[in-house]
Amino acid sequence: MAFTESEVIALLAQVFASSNPNLEVGIGDDAAVIRTSNRTVITTDMAVEGVHFRLDWSSAFEIGRKITAANLADVFSMGAKPTFLVVALSLTGNEDLEWIKNLAKGILFEANLVGAAVVGGDLAKGAAVTIAITALGEFGDFGEFADPILRSGAKAGDQIYVSNLPGWSRAGLAILEKGLPIESDSAKRAVAAFRAPTLNYAYAANLTQATAMSDVSDSLITQAEQMAAASSVKFNLDFNLFQAAADFAELHTLSEELNISVADLILGGGEDHVFLATGKDLPGLLIGNVSAGSGLTVLGNEKAPDTWRHFD
Amino acid sequence: MAFTESEVIALLAQVFASSNPNLEVGIGDDAAVIRTSNRTVITTDMAVEGVHFRLDWSSAFEIGRKITAANLADVFSMGAKPTFLVVALSLTGNEDLEWIKNLAKGILFEANLVGAAVVGGDLAKGAAVTIAITALGEFGDFGEFADPILRSGAKAGDQIYVSNLPGWSRAGLAILEKGLPIESDSAKRAVAAFRAPTLNYAYAANLTQATAMSDVSDSLITQAEQMAAASSVKFNLDFNLFQAAADFAELHTLSEELNISVADLILGGGEDHVFLATGKDLPGLLIGNVSAGSGLTVLGNEKAPDTWRHFD
Repeated sequence: MAFTESEVIALLAQVFASSNPNLEVGIGDDAAVIRTSNRTVITTDMAVEGVHFRLDWSSAFEIGRKITAANLADVFSMGAKPTFLVVALSLTGNEDLEWIKNLAKGILFEANLVGAAVVGGDLAKGAAVTIAITALGEFGDFGEFADPILRSGAKAGDQIYVSNLPGWSRAGLAILEKGLPIESDSAKRAVAAFRAPTLNYAYAANLTQATAMSDVSDSLITQAEQMAAASSVKFNLDFNLFQAAADFAELHTLSEELNISVADLILGGGEDHVFLATGKDLPGLLIGNVSAGSGLTVLGNEKAPDTWRHFD
Repeated sequence: MAFTESEVIALLAQVFASSNPNLEVGIGDDAAVIRTSNRTVITTDMAVEGVHFRLDWSSAFEIGRKITAANLADVFSMGAKPTFLVVALSLTGNEDLEWIKNLAKGILFEANLVGAAVVGGDLAKGAAVTIAITALGEFGDFGEFADPILRSGAKAGDQIYVSNLPGWSRAGLAILEKGLPIESDSAKRAVAAFRAPTLNYAYAANLTQATAMSDVSDSLITQAEQMAAASSVKFNLDFNLFQAAADFAELHTLSEELNISVADLILGGGEDHVFLATGKDLPGLLIGNVSAGSGLTVLGNEKAPDTWRHFD
């Protein structure tokens, strides 16, 4: 081991030191103590080396950003604002302190984007780096009472929106898997989106009029199917509407270079963590509408091809 | 894989289904929503197969109980009561659904002991079973304001107490490591304590007069040293006082059979998650006193032997 447990704990306590006024007891005791309002959102996400990230594909900073973003997106998807995080981390012992510090800095960077603080954690040994983050969040202004936005609220007559065009992360993964050069601006953008997507937190934070919301962590199709099922309605996606995105043409060109259909990238891609929402006259990219019934249609098909579903 | 992701999620949602009145949105959306008071305790713990548990040494039920107990103990150690848990789980794919169900039942069993509910989680693939649990807790009656009990509150003149005699779990580990028969009542008790310790939650829940409290997750010596340092005082442990424990003689006899000194078991053993507390005229087993100064003495030594420290 290139480090001792107490060295790592001291390092993490230093990186995550917070002056958040709602933090009463931070790292160093059996647990943290935070001020909370009367409703709290809680979500957890685990990322495993070799499955969710590869050490030769992503820097420690990028890995930290990405797993944190996945958690924050879940909080925003409820119509809430992230407040506090705890991080459980298993290390192999082959990492150096600099790598661990950069992982922590990536977590902190992403948390800082939304004003959340890291207030505790746990350190373990394991055969693979594994990161489990739990995020808390709250609704409205501190102390107030506001209703969460669930997946089950979509209604017939609603329109369907995404915050941004998905597919960039999926394209970046393809580039890394195929070992293609990362030279063009489009390739760089795609790989960056895979390594550490830049989430549109502001979109979700202002979507108080949405009837349903979710972030797209698996594929857009999977997430849309789940939302339609939870809401007992039918989702009708119009693939032509995606062409209105400013970056559709760029992604389309890249898809041809990668020999992947742009529909596979957009509908089958996940991990961009774009926000999927329903409602009337929402901001964002309109991609379809909600009708009575069940299931999902896209491109006129009642059933989406399995290439648009993905599981890790 | 003997199962699909959606099968496991459906199974876990079924096992963890809760009618807790403070749970507004449970498993199935992007995050859970819970009612909270104005102060929340949060702690996280990760356990890795092969490091914290072995599949051939412990049942899934016992593994679930043990990792959950470690989290609950951290909440009680703050003077708080556990309320909600989330569970992030990585599976190898070689488990069967029955094993996963029993793991979940172990988590639920332990959570039920203290009235806490499992309200969310994440499922990942990995080369080893890894379980990360985050526990929330609150102080006093719901909505009230109460002060946490920190590690840093011990004062010169206080007495030092443990809820129970530690060392049984360490003895159980030794029996399993050496492959000794598990036949005598003492051996069975020790192995059971290692596999899934039975915590004295009621002790911690009623210790409102303690000046400092912690659970013993590493070794008693390590935990006592940390508490003395956090409180800027000196801890004086009197090993003879442990003999007042009703089960000291039984542990002593077992220690001789194992050829380990009983002091190594008691002072160097962890994972029983006994509660260590300071204060005046507390319940529990009196084991020493606090004086001005720094560090720790035990058996007249200024420095505890390294065999009493243990790290995983």
